[in-house]
Amino acid sequence: MPLTRPRKARQPMPQDRPDDAFAWIDAQRERRDRAGLVRRLSPRPADSPLLDLASNDYLGLARHPEVTAAAAAAAQRWGAGSTGSRLVTGSTELHTTLERELADFCGFEAALVFSSGYAANLAAVSALSGRDALIVSDAGNHASLIDGCRLSRAEVAVVPHADPDAVRKALGAAEEDTREEAAEGAGAVPARRRALAVSDSVFSVDGDAAPLAALAAACRAHGAALVVDEAHGLGVLGEGGRGAVHGAGLAGAPDVVVTATLSKSLGSQGGVVLGPARVIEHLLNTARTFIFDTGLNPAAVGAALASLRLLRREPERAARVRTVAMGLYGRLTAAGLTAVRPDASVVSVRAPSPEQAVRWAADCRAAGLLVGCFRPPSVPDGISRLRLTARGDLTEEQVGRAVDVIVKTAPTA
Amino acid sequence: MPLTRPRKARQPMPQDRPDDAFAWIDAQRERRDRAGLVRRLSPRPADSPLLDLASNDYLGLARHPEVTAAAAAAAQRWGAGSTGSRLVTGSTELHTTLERELADFCGFEAALVFSSGYAANLAAVSALSGRDALIVSDAGNHASLIDGCRLSRAEVAVVPHADPDAVRKALGAAEEDTREEAAEGAGAVPARRRALAVSDSVFSVDGDAAPLAALAAACRAHGAALVVDEAHGLGVLGEGGRGAVHGAGLAGAPDVVVTATLSKSLGSQGGVVLGPARVIEHLLNTARTFIFDTGLNPAAVGAALASLRLLRREPERAARVRTVAMGLYGRLTAAGLTAVRPDASVVSVRAPSPEQAVRWAADCRAAGLLVGCFRPPSVPDGISRLRLTARGDLTEEQVGRAVDVIVKTAPTA
Repeated sequence: MPLTRPRKARQPMPQDRPDDAFAWIDAQRERRDRAGLVRRLSPRPADSPLLDLASNDYLGLARHPEVTAAAAAAAQRWGAGSTGSRLVTGSTELHTTLERELADFCGFEAALVFSSGYAANLAAVSALSGRDALIVSDAGNHASLIDGCRLSRAEVAVVPHADPDAVRKALGAAEEDTREEAAEGAGAVPARRRALAVSDSVFSVDGDAAPLAALAAACRAHGAALVVDEAHGLGVLGEGGRGAVHGAGLAGAPDVVVTATLSKSLGSQGGVVLGPARVIEHLLNTARTFIFDTGLNPAAVGAALASLRLLRREPERAARVRTVAMGLYGRLTAAGLTAVRPDASVVSVRAPSPEQAVRWAADCRAAGLLVGCFRPPSVPDGISRLRLTARGDLTEEQVGRAVDVIVKTAPTA
Repeated sequence: MPLTRPRKARQPMPQDRPDDAFAWIDAQRERRDRAGLVRRLSPRPADSPLLDLASNDYLGLARHPEVTAAAAAAAQRWGAGSTGSRLVTGSTELHTTLERELADFCGFEAALVFSSGYAANLAAVSALSGRDALIVSDAGNHASLIDGCRLSRAEVAVVPHADPDAVRKALGAAEEDTREEAAEGAGAVPARRRALAVSDSVFSVDGDAAPLAALAAACRAHGAALVVDEAHGLGVLGEGGRGAVHGAGLAGAPDVVVTATLSKSLGSQGGVVLGPARVIEHLLNTARTFIFDTGLNPAAVGAALASLRLLRREPERAARVRTVAMGLYGRLTAAGLTAVRPDASVVSVRAPSPEQAVRWAADCRAAGLLVGCFRPPSVPDGISRLRLTARGDLTEEQVGRAVDVIVKTAPTA
């Protein structure tokens, strides 16, 4: 297959073929090749012998018999697809049930389910800002939040990572501008400029948590809203996995909106936005990735609902993930590796260079262990690392085996 | 539930609550209320008694027993979710099989599956253009193509709907600029500016087809690429439903890229980009909605694959959709209604005003018929219409009943 076949010969350079609309692609590929940055797919079989510390299936629910049975039953009962936009034929009563139970679990008034977390983030950020708004965005935010900022056409202030003071300053500067403009006007009531701060609750690359209470305080001091992406917080942090926002006492706050994926702890697919009912109604009416997208397929809705109910019944699953993550971190650092203390399920281990990170991950794989490998250009800070995910269903034996492999294959530099 | 509960009382205006971060939302809601443009969800039961001429389930495959069984089997065998990015753990061998069979069916070298058609369009348009590129975009293009243009940061020339001469002019003007700049330079080889034209193959609102052969010729004359969204063409147009691009003899062309949804004719969820292998490899390496999104869930992959195989086995399904659409159009216009002659499965019937369109659709619903209703602001031209989809599995009796209801409930203006 062309997708995975190794390259054979160099392609001619763009100058050679002026009529070739995609000649520039070959030039880019040459550069990736030379830099050792070519990505390839590694499709997995249904029953992989590899020990998985790379997926985002934090609670191990993607293969849980109750969850897969619910997916299968939903496809049989509701159809293989949702058949249209959520606003036309793409909303089933199953979607409504999931939305109600997600809102209830996370402590928000209402919820809206999207076909992906990416779509949920594009919706929340763009529909809650706009051309005249200010968005203050953490430098470590996920690509989907960044794309939401770009689509919004708002003024975007990117602030240093996990720095609530910087958020406060950026919001304050904007407010000052508004006051000055109002003072120059003829006594009109100063219309507050729409503003929001946007942050992951747990950052995907290093697994560190955002200072949510301080962020919320900074936003409140300036009448701004706070949008928090709980992709890596839901199912792991907060009481019984209700998320970091719930843990910080911010669930149901009138000025806080949460987004999350259904594809990580809930082992399914899709995304959700949670917030005040008026915010959800606003998204339903204005968010382009809600209005112009096909609704989430029933199998994914059913699976997410089954996972959520399972998590309610077995809340210890969330705590177990954190225990496994701290165990991994403790053993790896004790063996002399440099890692970031995990706030949730992701354990980030430093590698000396992109090339060594790639080789390290490959050596782990050869030894039966699947780990993530983050390296430029997909990490904003240019630091290469192995990314381990501490699944809650890993046994002590599996954790021990994983640590052994990682330590034994570590670069000696 | 807050989502669907009717509104009770007016909310205070923004000026009343300066500390309320979302006060502006109430003001927007007031405006929607006054204009009669409030959208609400109508979640459907598993077995709706309504006759469906509103969904995009063009071939009636979303509920086909083979397709739902394949969805269920895939969830059981591969898991409820794909568990990660396609580049990490989110690619199964089932994804590879679907990609190979889609590419083969549509006549392209390679294919890449996304979690939605929206994501596929964001990927194709943004990854194949860039900040210095020119995108020539049809005024009637889908929101996801428009958002792809916005994310690309390219120069975007929006040209009149279905007007290849306008595309040719826009591409020519850009080429002229490049030549002038090169002439001013010191004899350097003029680097051709990256350019692409973007169009739906069948437009969602009026169901009319794009002049693909003329568009491709315009692109070739200027060394530009052509990106065609076959969301409404796949499964309906071309030999056995291979799409309008295949029908126009452009399948597999080196400068043509096709995007499509798996959620319409294939009755599932997801999106796909089809094109030359180097283009697909480029997307895999650079497209943000591929790299940073969770892979499509196995149930949706399995369902799309089953639908595709069914369509190969029963190619007459595609022709049947077109027959039903022309039958609907013929009977509705014979009864004095104004409709657009359908090029595929969508039949668009004009309504005198947004209010009358909404009432017309509601009256149809009350009479047991579900139809789509497109009105401002989701239609760029401001024209309100009923949007009917001619499913290939509608019987003659059902078509007759649908026509009777639409004609009887038509506004008298």
